[in-house]
Amino acid sequence: MRATVFHAPHDVRVETVPDAGLKDPTDALVRVTRAAICGSDLWFYRGVSKWEPGMRTGHEFIGVVEAVGAEVRTVKVGDQVIAPFAFSDGTCEFCQKGLQTSCLHGGYWGGEVDGGQAEAVNVPFADGTLVTFPAELSDRLSAVLPLTDVLPTGHHAAIRAAVRPGGTAIVVGDGAVGLCAVLASSRIGADRIIAVGHNPERLRLAKRLGATETFNSHDDDVADRLIEATAGGAEHVLEAVGAQASMDLAIKVARPGGTVGFVGVPAEVKGIDVRGLFGRNVTLAGGVAPARAYIPELLKDIKAGTLDPSPVLDLTVPLDGVPGGYRAMDGRTAIKVMVEVS
Amino acid sequence: MRATVFHAPHDVRVETVPDAGLKDPTDALVRVTRAAICGSDLWFYRGVSKWEPGMRTGHEFIGVVEAVGAEVRTVKVGDQVIAPFAFSDGTCEFCQKGLQTSCLHGGYWGGEVDGGQAEAVNVPFADGTLVTFPAELSDRLSAVLPLTDVLPTGHHAAIRAAVRPGGTAIVVGDGAVGLCAVLASSRIGADRIIAVGHNPERLRLAKRLGATETFNSHDDDVADRLIEATAGGAEHVLEAVGAQASMDLAIKVARPGGTVGFVGVPAEVKGIDVRGLFGRNVTLAGGVAPARAYIPELLKDIKAGTLDPSPVLDLTVPLDGVPGGYRAMDGRTAIKVMVEVS
Repeated sequence: MRATVFHAPHDVRVETVPDAGLKDPTDALVRVTRAAICGSDLWFYRGVSKWEPGMRTGHEFIGVVEAVGAEVRTVKVGDQVIAPFAFSDGTCEFCQKGLQTSCLHGGYWGGEVDGGQAEAVNVPFADGTLVTFPAELSDRLSAVLPLTDVLPTGHHAAIRAAVRPGGTAIVVGDGAVGLCAVLASSRIGADRIIAVGHNPERLRLAKRLGATETFNSHDDDVADRLIEATAGGAEHVLEAVGAQASMDLAIKVARPGGTVGFVGVPAEVKGIDVRGLFGRNVTLAGGVAPARAYIPELLKDIKAGTLDPSPVLDLTVPLDGVPGGYRAMDGRTAIKVMVEVS
Repeated sequence: MRATVFHAPHDVRVETVPDAGLKDPTDALVRVTRAAICGSDLWFYRGVSKWEPGMRTGHEFIGVVEAVGAEVRTVKVGDQVIAPFAFSDGTCEFCQKGLQTSCLHGGYWGGEVDGGQAEAVNVPFADGTLVTFPAELSDRLSAVLPLTDVLPTGHHAAIRAAVRPGGTAIVVGDGAVGLCAVLASSRIGADRIIAVGHNPERLRLAKRLGATETFNSHDDDVADRLIEATAGGAEHVLEAVGAQASMDLAIKVARPGGTVGFVGVPAEVKGIDVRGLFGRNVTLAGGVAPARAYIPELLKDIKAGTLDPSPVLDLTVPLDGVPGGYRAMDGRTAIKVMVEVS
């Protein structure tokens, strides 16, 4: 089969690799229909995370079940399924608590296991990992695909930042996760949603997705202006980048007693203003989103047509176009790339 | 009157200063009966916080109201009162929310305003700041005095770490705040309370106050041993020191999805393991305790005799003995010093 393989920073290639196949009786073999490239893929692509040549790429995919192991109970051949970016056994303490990204036997796609930017993936713990979706969504796959990562991750930022109906939220970051954080805050019913980024087109999209105001993160005095606009900071700040500057800004603009929900992989964050948190009783509540826990409720709204994250996917490529897709995301000419695999 | 004045690191002196007196119609003049020396006073005493010569010291005191301004409504001459370590107007957004340490017009005792290690203090916003206590507690002043800071601060660690009945809490630090955090966790009903410190005598006291187990923080493998003892970390970790090592340990021993409540002034904390927080969805929820919000409910239990923080005060000195009290706390020969002023 064909799959995307990491060779070196700025060098990923689509190559022929051994076919994916069932290994354990709890596995499912999934033929990928759509995959995506994630902002967090740029960490290894740019050499910030140290990856080994030969590692598989991609942690976002949906597809069709082609085969299941003898012990799989909840998905069957022919089912259309969503794979969250982490697999999880569904039975351990953390899966039961809805924190599947801390599953005792789980892991992430890519690296030394199958990656999603490929024709097929062997899915461990199929019952604990996969969520089926109905045929009626077959013509809206671009609304379903963000359920694998960016939409639940944006939602996690909102949940961790305790966004509430009527509240004021500041979303730092205008990438796909930031845009999904806007969407999630709007879905929860925040009254004011202030999107902060530096790409005018993305900020316009943020407004379409529910932002009530936008600020340019490159303005020198953006922190002061945000604090002024909110008369002392926002109770809910959603950090969706994972860089030092975005984390610093997020903490600065939190209101005393407020919460910063951070969901950008903090690959480049070196320090945190602990005294700033302490002095104002600001809570720092971040983490890798338990997408599996959120997919059912978010899928329900997508089915109902009240939630549509598809605008964050602004470039579609075929599987052979994945290397070009990485270049587009690295160069910020695309927000997020969808890979049309089959 | 006599008051304690900072001259230089390791040099505080009790001197004659101008008498405290009313300035604004919302002030009360309080004659101090008992004051205390706080672990956080050691930051300026040791020169970690930069203080100017001439600054007044002490932020913990209880006393008797000697005079009130024309607009004071809730306290009257002769009342016995508890002063939280921060004064607050009682009316602003944050006071109304119970976050009086973020009061828009508030501040802390000492420095350029009156300090508590003195014969008298002018209290701004008397109605918003002071809490009265009944004459029946006159013979238990050492149980009342910790309400000014360390008991509400330990309670805040428990609240911020979301300690719950039946839960498991790890308390890092065996100083007065750590001991009060043990007491607060016990009061809330935690099932296991693991005290971590390096002073055998204080750890024994922790057991008297409710700790179910104790660990030595100087053991090289203390983090691993705590993680083993809790089969993966505790959901509730209370950090009561504010040093780099204690913060690192607190974050390490938090269970995935758990919370670190930190209340030690982080004067020496340089860095935070953000990736560790992120990967395990550990919440960092610290801050300066809104003592004023907690005093009424804690006082109720002290009155009822079900809560007694007095054992954390293990040395009593007269006002002239304050410099010796600082030496004792700096040398860790005393947990916490009570100053018998009048």
